Amino acid sequence: LGSGQTELAKEMLHQLQPGDLALLLESSRSRNRLDIWQLIQPDLYSDVLEELSDDVRNGIIRKMLPEKVADALEEMDTDNLVDTLRGLPQEVAQNLLAAMDEQDRSRAELGLSYGEETAGFIMNTDAITLRPGINVDVILRYLRLKGDMPEHTDTLYVVDRDYRLMGGVALTRLITAAAATPIESLMKTSEAIPASMMDNEVASLFERYNWLSAPVVDENNQLLGRITIDDVVDIIREDAEHSMMSMAGLDDEEDTFAPVIKSTQRRSIWLGVNLLTALMAAAVSDLFEAALSQLAVLAILNTIVPSMGGVAGNQTLTLVIRGMALGHVNSANARWLISKELAIGFLNGVIWSVLIASVIAIWKQDLMLGAVIAFAMLINMIAAGLAGASLPIIMKKLKIDPALAGSVILTTITDVVGIFAFLGSATWLLI
Amino acid sequence: LGSGQTELAKEMLHQLQPGDLALLLESSRSRNRLDIWQLIQPDLYSDVLEELSDDVRNGIIRKMLPEKVADALEEMDTDNLVDTLRGLPQEVAQNLLAAMDEQDRSRAELGLSYGEETAGFIMNTDAITLRPGINVDVILRYLRLKGDMPEHTDTLYVVDRDYRLMGGVALTRLITAAAATPIESLMKTSEAIPASMMDNEVASLFERYNWLSAPVVDENNQLLGRITIDDVVDIIREDAEHSMMSMAGLDDEEDTFAPVIKSTQRRSIWLGVNLLTALMAAAVSDLFEAALSQLAVLAILNTIVPSMGGVAGNQTLTLVIRGMALGHVNSANARWLISKELAIGFLNGVIWSVLIASVIAIWKQDLMLGAVIAFAMLINMIAAGLAGASLPIIMKKLKIDPALAGSVILTTITDVVGIFAFLGSATWLLI
Repeated sequence: LGSGQTELAKEMLHQLQPGDLALLLESSRSRNRLDIWQLIQPDLYSDVLEELSDDVRNGIIRKMLPEKVADALEEMDTDNLVDTLRGLPQEVAQNLLAAMDEQDRSRAELGLSYGEETAGFIMNTDAITLRPGINVDVILRYLRLKGDMPEHTDTLYVVDRDYRLMGGVALTRLITAAAATPIESLMKTSEAIPASMMDNEVASLFERYNWLSAPVVDENNQLLGRITIDDVVDIIREDAEHSMMSMAGLDDEEDTFAPVIKSTQRRSIWLGVNLLTALMAAAVSDLFEAALSQLAVLAILNTIVPSMGGVAGNQTLTLVIRGMALGHVNSANARWLISKELAIGFLNGVIWSVLIASVIAIWKQDLMLGAVIAFAMLINMIAAGLAGASLPIIMKKLKIDPALAGSVILTTITDVVGIFAFLGSATWLLI
Repeated sequence: LGSGQTELAKEMLHQLQPGDLALLLESSRSRNRLDIWQLIQPDLYSDVLEELSDDVRNGIIRKMLPEKVADALEEMDTDNLVDTLRGLPQEVAQNLLAAMDEQDRSRAELGLSYGEETAGFIMNTDAITLRPGINVDVILRYLRLKGDMPEHTDTLYVVDRDYRLMGGVALTRLITAAAATPIESLMKTSEAIPASMMDNEVASLFERYNWLSAPVVDENNQLLGRITIDDVVDIIREDAEHSMMSMAGLDDEEDTFAPVIKSTQRRSIWLGVNLLTALMAAAVSDLFEAALSQLAVLAILNTIVPSMGGVAGNQTLTLVIRGMALGHVNSANARWLISKELAIGFLNGVIWSVLIASVIAIWKQDLMLGAVIAFAMLINMIAAGLAGASLPIIMKKLKIDPALAGSVILTTITDVVGIFAFLGSATWLLI
C-alpha cells in the first residue's frame, strides 16, 4: 500500500462498526491482520477485540504494546476481559492485571476465580440493583439521575441489605406501571443461575425459557452479576460448531487463515490416530492373507462392507450426539434408543444385504460370493447401529467427549467387524 | 397408567413451564407423545407448540381436533403461526386459515407470502410504533395507557404518516431521558432488515452487531414487523446443526425418537449413495486384479492410502464449510485459501509418507513396497487438500449445499485417487 492508499484505507475502515472490523480481520490472512489493525481507531480496540475469536485475538494482543492492551482491556465487559486474560500466557496476564486500577482488577479476578466454562466466567458485573420498599416514581427518578444504562439491560434486580437476590423488575413492566406502584408488585422471583453452572446448561435454560438476561448468584444467593443473551448466542454457536469440528478432528477455535505450519501441526494428531486405525484394519486383513492370495476378488470387494458400516454407524452417532447436546437423550430413554437403533441396523442390514448380493451375483457371476458379502453386511450393519447408539452414551458416562473420539472408535469397530465378517466367512465358505 | 397415577402425572405436568413440556415431549418415544399431550392444560397448547421442532409439532397437530388447533394457533406469535401453517398439508392449512378471524388470517397470509427462510417469514407483527413530534412524557403516558408490552420489546419504532420507518427509540434511553426530551433526540436511525433477506444473513447481522431486535421493512421502507433475538437463536442453532447433520447424511429435522421404519427410510438415501461410491472404488481396484492376485500384500494395504486421504480431505472440507457459514470465506480470499490447503496437503503428504514407508518397510521387510505406498500417500494428500478446499467453493457457486454433498464427493475422489496411485504404481514398479 502506498501512503495515499493507506489514508484511503484508513478512511474506509473508520466507517465500519466493530463487528464489521472483526469480520474483516477474521477473513484476512494472518500476516495481513496486523497491518489492518494499525489502521483501526484506538478507541475501538476494545470493542473489536471483544468480537474476535480467541485465536485471532491472542495473535493480535501478543503484538500490541502492553500499555495499549491494558487500555483496551479496561474498557471491556467483564466477561470478555476475563476471557481475554485467560487466553494469554500466565505471565502476560499477571502483568496486565497488575497494571489495572483496583476496580477492574477485582472484577477480573472474580471472573477468573470461576472455571472457564461456567456461568461465573461469562457473566458481566454491571447489573443495576434496587432496594425493596420503593415505588416506580422513585426508581424512574433514580434511573434518570444515573443516566446511561449498561448495554442489553432488560431487567433490574432487587437485592436485600446483604445483596441477596430477591427478584427482578422488567423494564417493560416498569414503563407501563403507574408512578405509585410499589416495587414489590412488579417484582418477579426470577430463576437465578449459580455461578458454578456449566455454560451449556446456561444456554439451554436461555433457549428453553426465551430469556434475554438472567441473574448470577453465589452459593449464598448473593447477586454477582448477569448473563446476557449476546454471550449465550456465542456459546450456542460454539457448542454446535464444536460437535461438527470435533467429528472431523479439528479444534473448534481453528482459524481458517492460520499459517500453513501451524495448521499442519494442529491436524496431525487426528491423522496419526487414523493411521493407527487404518493399520489395525490392515492387520486384520493380514490374518486372511491366504484367502486374499487365492481369490483376488475378495481384495476388490473388501472395502464395501466396512464402508457401509461406517456410514450407517456415523449417522446413528451424529443423531445421538445431537440428541444429548439438546438434552433429549437421558438415562430414562437410553436403553430404548439403543434398541431402536439396533432395529434400524437390522432393517438396513436386510435391505442392503439383498441389494449388494444381487449386484455381486450379477457382476461377478457368483451366487455364493453374493451370499458371503450379504452375510457380512448384515452383521456389520447391526454392529454399526449398536456401536453408534451406545458409544456416545458410554463415553458420556466416562466423561469423554463423544464428538471428539466417537467417530474414530466407531470406524475402527465397523472396519474390524466388517473385515472379519467378510474375509472370515469367505475363508470358511469359498476356499 | 392407572387413573390415580394419571391424576398425579397431570399435577406434575401442571407445574412445568412450556419450555419444559416441549423438552419432555421431544425426549419421549413418538407413540407416548399423544398421551403426554392430553395431560397438558389446553391454555398452554400454543406456547408448547411454539417450542417444539417441526417434526414433533406436526405429528401432534395431525392428531388434534381441528377447532383446538385453530384456538392454539390464534394465540401464537406470527412467526410461529406462519411456521406451523407452512409445515401442515396444504389443505389442512387452508381450512385453518379460513377458520381464523380476519386479523389473524391477514398477519398469517403476510408471513406466508414470503419465502420460508426469509426475514418476512420469521418476523413478528407486534412492534410498538410512535409518531414523530412528541416528547418522552407523552410516550410514557401512552405506554401506561396501553398497559402490557409484547414479549422481548427493547425498542419502539418511529414511523411517518405512511408507516415508513424513521428510526428506533431504545427503552433504556426512554427511561433515562428527561420528561420534556423530544422523541427526535432519542431516536437512532437503526439499520432495517428487508423482508426478503435470507434468515442466515439476518442471524449474522444480529451476531455481528449484538442486536436484541431489529425492524423489518418492505421495499418502500414501510415497517412490517420486527425480528427478536429468541428466533435468531433458533436459526443459529439450526444452521450450525444443519452442517453437522448434513455431513452425516441426515435431515436436520430428524427426530431422535421417530419410529424405526420412518428413520430407516430417511437414512437409506445416503447409504444408497455410499454403496454406489463403494462400488466405484471396488471397480477401480478391479482394474488391477492381476496385481492383486500376484501380491496379496497389496490387498492388505489397499485401504490405508484412501483412508488417510479421506480424513485429511474432510478436515479441510469441514473448515472451509464453517468458514463460509461464518462469512469468512469469500471470492477475495478463496484462491489464497485453496493454495494454503494445497501446501498443507503437500506437507502432510511428506510427513505421513515418510512414516508409513518406515512402518511398511519394517512390517513387510520390503523397501520398494514402502516407497510405493509413500508415493501414493503424497499424491492422495495433495488431492485431498485441493478437493477439500475447492469443492465447497465450487459447489456454492453452483448453488449446491456443500455440507450435504461435499463429503461424499470428496471421499469418492480420495478413494479413486488413492487406489489408482497405490495399485497403479505397484503394478508399474513391483510386478
